[in-house]
Amino acid sequence: MTAPDPAALLAVARDEALLGRTEGGVPIGAALFTADGTLLGRGHNRRVQDDDPTMHAETAAFRAAGRRPHYQDTIMVTTLSPCWYCSGLVRQFGIPALVVGEARTFSGGHAWLAEHGVAVTVLDDPECVRLMRAFVAEHPGLWHEDIGVPD
Amino acid sequence: MTAPDPAALLAVARDEALLGRTEGGVPIGAALFTADGTLLGRGHNRRVQDDDPTMHAETAAFRAAGRRPHYQDTIMVTTLSPCWYCSGLVRQFGIPALVVGEARTFSGGHAWLAEHGVAVTVLDDPECVRLMRAFVAEHPGLWHEDIGVPD
Repeated sequence: MTAPDPAALLAVARDEALLGRTEGGVPIGAALFTADGTLLGRGHNRRVQDDDPTMHAETAAFRAAGRRPHYQDTIMVTTLSPCWYCSGLVRQFGIPALVVGEARTFSGGHAWLAEHGVAVTVLDDPECVRLMRAFVAEHPGLWHEDIGVPD
Repeated sequence: MTAPDPAALLAVARDEALLGRTEGGVPIGAALFTADGTLLGRGHNRRVQDDDPTMHAETAAFRAAGRRPHYQDTIMVTTLSPCWYCSGLVRQFGIPALVVGEARTFSGGHAWLAEHGVAVTVLDDPECVRLMRAFVAEHPGLWHEDIGVPD
């Protein structure tokens, strides 16, 4: 089994983020893969689209993957450092590997996950950074709402 | 403003847990209130009912409360110590108070939340304990799936 290229996995999450932007939503995307790179589920933040504050990108990808007996053979990929909510999901369900597009515009719990044994790869992808920088500049209120920070 | 009675708040979450049991689901319930005891949203675990692994009780209650600009004036109430996923939700969204029915059958992140400034009340409610003990004994596989523990 060859380990998949993290950049190739990130491309799927980034496509989800771009789809979220097109829909007028928070442009964060994620995908859950098996360790050999098979896609299990993909999704993007749906706060605006579904009026649902629980649908962060990682949660949406996890939901799309459906019920599984365990996650020991999976990789979570997200365009942005996961917030505490999504970091908690990764820890609780024992997802052993995390690929992060960027952690410049927001730094959540990826270092905490690494401390707890998750193999974390931060790619510092310029396109992910540009996407979030533009979104935060254009929609600061929506961004703050999405991470629970009072305006 | 009088602070609400934690036991009265827990009764709402417990009713949700009982409803979940009646539906054949994981019997964990939760509710989000304002600091003065006004109900914002209530829900229960919907893994079985909706085939949705993201719908833990606290997440369901948070979703039911809808989009809010912030959570600085809220209390999360749950029948069981919140797992890392739901603890992460409480931390990320700055929910300042947490009422827990019991932490005997499962201990998640409530102590971690207390360390991070959340006012945590553990009620050690015998009915919540009985409900979870019976569920875990009858459906160990479903319980393990719900917390990401391989059978």
